[in-house]
Amino acid sequence: MNKQLILKNRPFGEPDANTWELIESEIPSAGEGEIVVEQYYVSLDPAMRGWMNDQKSYIPPVQIGEVMRAGAAGKVIESNNPKFDVGDYVYGWGGVQQYAVTDGMTYHKVDKNLVPLPVYTGTLGMPGMTAYFGILDVGEIKEGEVVLISGAAGAVGSVAGQIAKIKGCHVIGIAGGAEKCAYVINELGFDSCIDYKNENVKAKLKEYAPKGIDVYFDNVGGEILNAALGRLRKFGRVALCGAISQYNATQLPQGPSNYLSLLINSAKMEGFIVMNYASRYGEAGRQMGQWMAEGKLKSKEHIDEGIENFYSTFMKLFNGNKKGKLVLKVADEN
Amino acid sequence: MNKQLILKNRPFGEPDANTWELIESEIPSAGEGEIVVEQYYVSLDPAMRGWMNDQKSYIPPVQIGEVMRAGAAGKVIESNNPKFDVGDYVYGWGGVQQYAVTDGMTYHKVDKNLVPLPVYTGTLGMPGMTAYFGILDVGEIKEGEVVLISGAAGAVGSVAGQIAKIKGCHVIGIAGGAEKCAYVINELGFDSCIDYKNENVKAKLKEYAPKGIDVYFDNVGGEILNAALGRLRKFGRVALCGAISQYNATQLPQGPSNYLSLLINSAKMEGFIVMNYASRYGEAGRQMGQWMAEGKLKSKEHIDEGIENFYSTFMKLFNGNKKGKLVLKVADEN
Repeated sequence: MNKQLILKNRPFGEPDANTWELIESEIPSAGEGEIVVEQYYVSLDPAMRGWMNDQKSYIPPVQIGEVMRAGAAGKVIESNNPKFDVGDYVYGWGGVQQYAVTDGMTYHKVDKNLVPLPVYTGTLGMPGMTAYFGILDVGEIKEGEVVLISGAAGAVGSVAGQIAKIKGCHVIGIAGGAEKCAYVINELGFDSCIDYKNENVKAKLKEYAPKGIDVYFDNVGGEILNAALGRLRKFGRVALCGAISQYNATQLPQGPSNYLSLLINSAKMEGFIVMNYASRYGEAGRQMGQWMAEGKLKSKEHIDEGIENFYSTFMKLFNGNKKGKLVLKVADEN
Repeated sequence: MNKQLILKNRPFGEPDANTWELIESEIPSAGEGEIVVEQYYVSLDPAMRGWMNDQKSYIPPVQIGEVMRAGAAGKVIESNNPKFDVGDYVYGWGGVQQYAVTDGMTYHKVDKNLVPLPVYTGTLGMPGMTAYFGILDVGEIKEGEVVLISGAAGAVGSVAGQIAKIKGCHVIGIAGGAEKCAYVINELGFDSCIDYKNENVKAKLKEYAPKGIDVYFDNVGGEILNAALGRLRKFGRVALCGAISQYNATQLPQGPSNYLSLLINSAKMEGFIVMNYASRYGEAGRQMGQWMAEGKLKSKEHIDEGIENFYSTFMKLFNGNKKGKLVLKVADEN
């Protein structure tokens, strides 16, 4: 049987145990041009929270009764599609389920001899691509610049900050808790890290970036975005990647009251969606794969097991009980 | 004697009659390398309000006891500077006074045979340059795009919107009152105009830009900025030029709660200062002069008389009792 997690109720604010329902159905078979994928690793990402709201966005919302949208890595076990052979390992929009049937349009093959499969949900997947294009193309980082990264211990922030270090920037992270900050500095190589749960972000920013910051890569929004805006230097850039502090909010955020810092500093704040760069995923994957092989870019995954544990695992995106890329293992690899 | 307006008290919120003091002093004479300018037209601009606050910005604050900073057009009546001859008409940072002595560093000659002198404080001065670079270089307008301009009847907005029309955009203005809106449509040629004092901006935006807006040129900030953010299209641009609704505020603005529209639309919001483009003022002046000669670009000045009327005239920037460029005539041209 195929275990599938469907969206049952749209959450207002924080999701709860009744937001989704785990159902069982027959293992699908492939129609014309389709493949069936046995899924092993489901990618859990903050963006999923946004897809559950019934509002216009860059992608249609998940409908009630539909399998919860998610990226997933697995193996082709049936193929009526000439682009894929049985036994191919693949990544695509498989959703939170154990078997996915698909026309393969959103799928690409992955090589588990290069890196373990879960890495394709993280550093060599969407989060890594997001970090790569966000820090290089939106942030436009230059050697010697001061770069601030929130969510620094997370899937995207950890990669964005490491790329900034590779490019010769001075990199300051923001993360929740002393242990994460130690990880950010000691394992990821950031120059410093602010523990927003126990330290005064504004004061620490002044200490670690006395001349201000050139680039802020924002994963969190809220008061941290506001503090960063207040420290921007002339011609500074804010790459708006996410706003996890706001995703479960039940009303519009207050908005960054320091936004006029953009005006007096001739600075910009720019949002982006990784899909904008789809034509360059190959470039990014090759470059990041090379950095990983050279030991310059580290990838970390937090892997929980069991599709029935989806809810408690998903909430780790918001309660901070994880480091690196959050992954749900829904079946053993074979 | 030289009448000079000095900053007496820093305003908290709205300036009042005690903010400045009118004093008399000897008419200055030129030291080595200096010129003396007999000033006729003083430029009154919203940015002046910001220069009165004792805080870090793109330019140092005006100090208590100093002549109030302002641009001014006049005639050289004494010169020890080889770049200027007695009788030259010039524009520069002369301040709110009848005679200015200066090294001429910020001055350039103007030709009153081409356009009347007051135009050099407006359409062919800083406000015009601000509009030109803001709409073209920051807004990056393209033919056929939908462009929204706040402060549409003002010195900057009126020029920005006319340039957008010249470039083939669909242009929507926002202004205060039915008379200004009629002026914006009938005289400046905008496609439509929202009267923010009597109409629902959000609803009208939906009506006039059913598919959203590509570029918003913001002179006002506050709720109008927020409404515009909410209507941005994919890859939209917000050119942050000013925030006149906030300049007299006694606390930080609330901040645009719709800022995440930048994220889901891959849009950007960028501040700028006209001085960034100083090396290209010549280009902009020639182009706008040509458009004016061709009748494609109209310039309007609201000229009040008498340096003793500075305060009531200055407040017209905020209470809206003027159209086009606000100018204070401090002496008769001769």
